[in-house]
Amino acid sequence: MRIRYGMVGGGEGAFIGAVHRMAARLDDSFELVCGAFSSEAARALRSGAALGLPAARVYSDYETMLAREAALPTESRMQCVVIVTPNHLHLPVALGALARGFHVLSDKPATATLEQCRQLAAQLRGSGLHYGLTHPYSAYPMIREARARVARGELGAVRKVLVEYTQGWLTEPIDQGGGNKQAAWRHDPAQSGVGGCMGDIGVHAFQLAEFVSGLSVTELCADLRSVVAGRKLDDDGTVLMRFGPAASGTLIASQICAGDENSLRLRVYGERGGIDWQQMEPNSLWLRLLHGPAQLLRTGGAGTGAEAATVQRVPAGHPEGYIEAFGTLYREFALLLQQGGTTSVPGIGAALRGMAFVDTAVASSAAGCQWRALPDHQ
Amino acid sequence: MRIRYGMVGGGEGAFIGAVHRMAARLDDSFELVCGAFSSEAARALRSGAALGLPAARVYSDYETMLAREAALPTESRMQCVVIVTPNHLHLPVALGALARGFHVLSDKPATATLEQCRQLAAQLRGSGLHYGLTHPYSAYPMIREARARVARGELGAVRKVLVEYTQGWLTEPIDQGGGNKQAAWRHDPAQSGVGGCMGDIGVHAFQLAEFVSGLSVTELCADLRSVVAGRKLDDDGTVLMRFGPAASGTLIASQICAGDENSLRLRVYGERGGIDWQQMEPNSLWLRLLHGPAQLLRTGGAGTGAEAATVQRVPAGHPEGYIEAFGTLYREFALLLQQGGTTSVPGIGAALRGMAFVDTAVASSAAGCQWRALPDHQ
Amino acid sequence: MRIRYGMVGGGEGAFIGAVHRMAARLDDSFELVCGAFSSEAARALRSGAALGLPAARVYSDYETMLAREAALPTESRMQCVVIVTPNHLHLPVALGALARGFHVLSDKPATATLEQCRQLAAQLRGSGLHYGLTHPYSAYPMIREARARVARGELGAVRKVLVEYTQGWLTEPIDQGGGNKQAAWRHDPAQSGVGGCMGDIGVHAFQLAEFVSGLSVTELCADLRSVVAGRKLDDDGTVLMRFGPAASGTLIASQICAGDENSLRLRVYGERGGIDWQQMEPNSLWLRLLHGPAQLLRTGGAGTGAEAATVQRVPAGHPEGYIEAFGTLYREFALLLQQGGTTSVPGIGAALRGMAFVDTAVASSAAGCQWRALPDHQ
Amino acid sequence: MRIRYGMVGGGEGAFIGAVHRMAARLDDSFELVCGAFSSEAARALRSGAALGLPAARVYSDYETMLAREAALPTESRMQCVVIVTPNHLHLPVALGALARGFHVLSDKPATATLEQCRQLAAQLRGSGLHYGLTHPYSAYPMIREARARVARGELGAVRKVLVEYTQGWLTEPIDQGGGNKQAAWRHDPAQSGVGGCMGDIGVHAFQLAEFVSGLSVTELCADLRSVVAGRKLDDDGTVLMRFGPAASGTLIASQICAGDENSLRLRVYGERGGIDWQQMEPNSLWLRLLHGPAQLLRTGGAGTGAEAATVQRVPAGHPEGYIEAFGTLYREFALLLQQGGTTSVPGIGAALRGMAFVDTAVASSAAGCQWRALPDHQ
Repeated sequence: MRIRYGMVGGGEGAFIGAVHRMAARLDDSFELVCGAFSSEAARALRSGAALGLPAARVYSDYETMLAREAALPTESRMQCVVIVTPNHLHLPVALGALARGFHVLSDKPATATLEQCRQLAAQLRGSGLHYGLTHPYSAYPMIREARARVARGELGAVRKVLVEYTQGWLTEPIDQGGGNKQAAWRHDPAQSGVGGCMGDIGVHAFQLAEFVSGLSVTELCADLRSVVAGRKLDDDGTVLMRFGPAASGTLIASQICAGDENSLRLRVYGERGGIDWQQMEPNSLWLRLLHGPAQLLRTGGAGTGAEAATVQRVPAGHPEGYIEAFGTLYREFALLLQQGGTTSVPGIGAALRGMAFVDTAVASSAAGCQWRALPDHQ
Repeated sequence: MRIRYGMVGGGEGAFIGAVHRMAARLDDSFELVCGAFSSEAARALRSGAALGLPAARVYSDYETMLAREAALPTESRMQCVVIVTPNHLHLPVALGALARGFHVLSDKPATATLEQCRQLAAQLRGSGLHYGLTHPYSAYPMIREARARVARGELGAVRKVLVEYTQGWLTEPIDQGGGNKQAAWRHDPAQSGVGGCMGDIGVHAFQLAEFVSGLSVTELCADLRSVVAGRKLDDDGTVLMRFGPAASGTLIASQICAGDENSLRLRVYGERGGIDWQQMEPNSLWLRLLHGPAQLLRTGGAGTGAEAATVQRVPAGHPEGYIEAFGTLYREFALLLQQGGTTSVPGIGAALRGMAFVDTAVASSAAGCQWRALPDHQ
Repeated sequence: MRIRYGMVGGGEGAFIGAVHRMAARLDDSFELVCGAFSSEAARALRSGAALGLPAARVYSDYETMLAREAALPTESRMQCVVIVTPNHLHLPVALGALARGFHVLSDKPATATLEQCRQLAAQLRGSGLHYGLTHPYSAYPMIREARARVARGELGAVRKVLVEYTQGWLTEPIDQGGGNKQAAWRHDPAQSGVGGCMGDIGVHAFQLAEFVSGLSVTELCADLRSVVAGRKLDDDGTVLMRFGPAASGTLIASQICAGDENSLRLRVYGERGGIDWQQMEPNSLWLRLLHGPAQLLRTGGAGTGAEAATVQRVPAGHPEGYIEAFGTLYREFALLLQQGGTTSVPGIGAALRGMAFVDTAVASSAAGCQWRALPDHQ
Repeated sequence: MRIRYGMVGGGEGAFIGAVHRMAARLDDSFELVCGAFSSEAARALRSGAALGLPAARVYSDYETMLAREAALPTESRMQCVVIVTPNHLHLPVALGALARGFHVLSDKPATATLEQCRQLAAQLRGSGLHYGLTHPYSAYPMIREARARVARGELGAVRKVLVEYTQGWLTEPIDQGGGNKQAAWRHDPAQSGVGGCMGDIGVHAFQLAEFVSGLSVTELCADLRSVVAGRKLDDDGTVLMRFGPAASGTLIASQICAGDENSLRLRVYGERGGIDWQQMEPNSLWLRLLHGPAQLLRTGGAGTGAEAATVQRVPAGHPEGYIEAFGTLYREFALLLQQGGTTSVPGIGAALRGMAFVDTAVASSAAGCQWRALPDHQ
């Protein structure tokens, strides 16, 4: 049985909403039944119609959607709200959904601030409902492989984590002047929250680093900048990190790396070897153990383990990409809703970690690159 | 409105049937309404149930499916048959479907022999129905880009085409002994037809070469082998090709290239430049023009044209893969069924070309690498 | 003690002569003591002076050089002649050198025709002198590694060899009109011999294929073309090859692959795995064994064996290139001259194989791609 | 005329001494005439004999060498001292050489501390002698290309510099226990100076960043660690850098990145584009300008400019490597000695910058990652 979901945000022209819908369809585990796609009524209606929804279930705003859906018979009303709005709406939509008894699957960052995320966690606690956060990079088969190998100790104790996420699309001031809605809200503090680049992509890098290394950042020292004139939030930065006494790391995130596309790369080094993964060639994972040649592990390839195989869709050499990884989160979230149990889908714990990272990085940088402890929520 | 389709083949454990279904779902342009998934009744039923179909529309065989669906009301019966069986069934299923008024979307190769493909073409002619052949590699954004650039003359007159498709999965005799159904039927002449490797993957390479170069192979000289003992059909070969007087090419296809995954690569060289594309990194296309540096065109990247943009799903740097390419064929086939017009989906013309290639290559090789003209059907 | 050598050809502006001299210097195993650098007297003198040679040992032609050097005291006269002229002079210079008691190190192809090469072999036989042929690609560390692994049977019995060597520098008719001396002589049958592209680079690919696979081509079927108008020799071609009954191969060589630089690639596939090497990234060798992940062997890297280590100069990750590989041939040829014994430097056997390849390929193609046996000389 | 040089250090088994000698020979611009190769007399003699030097010019220590050579006739005595000892000897040897009137070409880092480097600079000033520092990476053709393009403003104003240099060879405590002399002295403060990894490889990364960007680091904040137990100097670190108000950067250097070979990478981003270069594929340079496809500039390739062409040795596609880059420094230093003028060889200015970097990074880290201004010497 498919999970019935309603979407908030993601109207015509939005990037991430369409990705969520493709991801939801891929394994037929979710079914879109309603939506509040836009605060512009006409746009909302057109979006719903284009998606084949009956007009009665295309709502003008999320409050209406939550109220009306809650009033529908159990067997037809939505079960889960997918949130793909600008960041400042993540909290109110999620709180409203939880209050009405709907599960929540939210795009990242979880909220606009850490404080908001704590509110969300408080509301979630004891609700009996599930909350998922779409960090799709953590669902790539070779990231699952990397995580499993690190967890099994193949690298020995982890000593160093390098994670970088560089993009170039905000090299020019396209967030200003109104021509680019995607860029504009991301650099408007009122919509984006405390973090600019850190909230948009740094948080992905951070989640990936913790997810694969199995370690938690305990303190950090951040050097963030707003490179492009007129920008109020960070668009570039480097964060020094400590994972307790034994390991340290560096996180680089930038949206002004002219010419870069979506260059997310993770390297983890231990006492006995290192791994190296790049999102733009996601089906390859380098494993370099001391005293032997480098090995290239591949999605579906010989030597690749069960954790990757579980989330692989096609044989080795047939490339899988971003939508498949995203789809895996959907499939796994559906399983969680249907069967409970543990899941690899990032939840409220990852949400709190991510927001703690963003908040702390911004504060550290504002204080002139002071070392700051990360609040521990997990 | 989604196209309602029924699937023949593709039961539990089959690789390509599952790919078709994911592809069909990706853009919500197709809806699976029935199937004859297996000749084993229990397996067929389990497969249908797992896909959420009502038992009434899970059929024990394709003849029953065609007959019963044809008897359903227009608004609910399937509109299109998707064929994902072993090759020997492609013709009878397609002929049956056309006879009942259903469109056909078939996996490759079109049929088991060229003669069969001519029968299919004859039946199709004047039927008012559409026939599509799933060569997914031709739907990758950067293949569309390559084709458009060649067609615009950016390379000058094409002189040379190199296409290779090497796999290693049949290095060992896994087709023998009954343990691997996928391998077994591909090397059983009764199910596979005249070609082994050439029918399975050589035909993809051939289609891609003609699709991108815009040229037609006029004659060929093939050297095919059955490398693994006990194999009756070719598992390895090289084909010399002429595209009229001005251009020539080499096609290498093999399934005994130990260690290779799904290494399809196309290079086209003209008087002024060359292009180079590799399926395992499908979002990159090398364009090398004389007297300037090499350019790396990317799915979604700056400088990439409209033909690629039309079939692109996510921004540059978010990798798209095999399922997306496959999905594009589905979306385009749906548009063809809904709106008519021209399409980039390979049709009966490509089917005849492909089967002419397989038949001629096998005959050329059997005659000791004689040059043979390709029958001209287009 | 360094080997004293004289050079024939390689005057100002020549590409390969300068490479030989750098290679000879790299390990200090050779010392240039004289030369006949050009048939133009002034150019010869300028070249010699630029190289720091005394005028007395800069000769106007090779006959004079051979005669005068032979008349010098043993301890100062040259010991070895290095031939870097156009192909048609390889035989007369080599014969003259051998007649005077000088060792010969020659650029490829050995001679202009197979018949000439047989003359050379006859003269060499019993002379007590050494003959070396500079196929530098066979001296790259990772080629030595590949050869050793194939010889040890790591791939199992070899089944398939793919070798390709594509360049784009002759895409335009630069051999015509007199502007490019390097290109002109290569496509002048009077200077180049029977082969154009096959003699220039096909012969490298052929040597590499036999060197690494350890197999000998027994018959071939060639399809050669002169693509650029006005060209008398082949500038593009594909050769089907048989290595006895068990293995086959394909050799592609072209100089009209617009945009390609010096793309030499060798793949060898056996029953249990495959290797893949590309000259433009020479310090990497892919080893793909069945049932395990791909391994990337590296010059100087862990897991790389003694054969590579012997010819490696700097630690892993400090790239070695073409001049180093060339220098290795010089060092090994010096050792041969000083100590005798076996060597990895290609000798008269490789010379005869190479010329048999060129002659046979040209004849096969002229006969309409007939299969022809390779004369067996080794 | 070749420059006559004597070498201090670089006896049997030493890595970098052999590299210097190959580099010196490559273009025949330097001639080794004497040496003090080792403090062990027998080893020194064996080393000299193996290099073909007469025993009279193989010295037991550098003071003797300097004194004796100074006493030789001008036309035969050495002109230049090449220093390839552990760091703590760089200063005394260089001072001695300058005092005797010899030019100096020194391996990096210039000295053991910044204070020592200032002494060296003082001695050099007014001496009429030349001092060169071998940062070979700055002599790769594509680094020269990168520098020229940045200088011409192709990227617009530089905003961000990312430079990383990771190795894995010190992952295990091979510096301890006496088995590895190369590793041991590098982590012995008495021989290495204030920096461990930063002095060994961080200083290369720093030099490259300033050389290509054309900018000077004004302040930095370093987080250095000694990861391996028992190590007294840093073996891993990240340095945040400011290049005045407009640009910032991150430098990562580590020798405990298990599995990494010699991974030096430089990225420079400006307002209009970025460049990306990796030492392990040194003949490629990515140039990514906004609003167009990425371009791959290549050593010897079309579109590559004069600065690279000047230091290129073989045609495009024939890989050049580390020894060639090193050789270019030798050739350029010879030209400087012979003709004067400006040079691209790093000199005392780069030496002071490098030592200022090492000193400041160590101090910043020791103070808990404080921002520190770099002393300005240039």
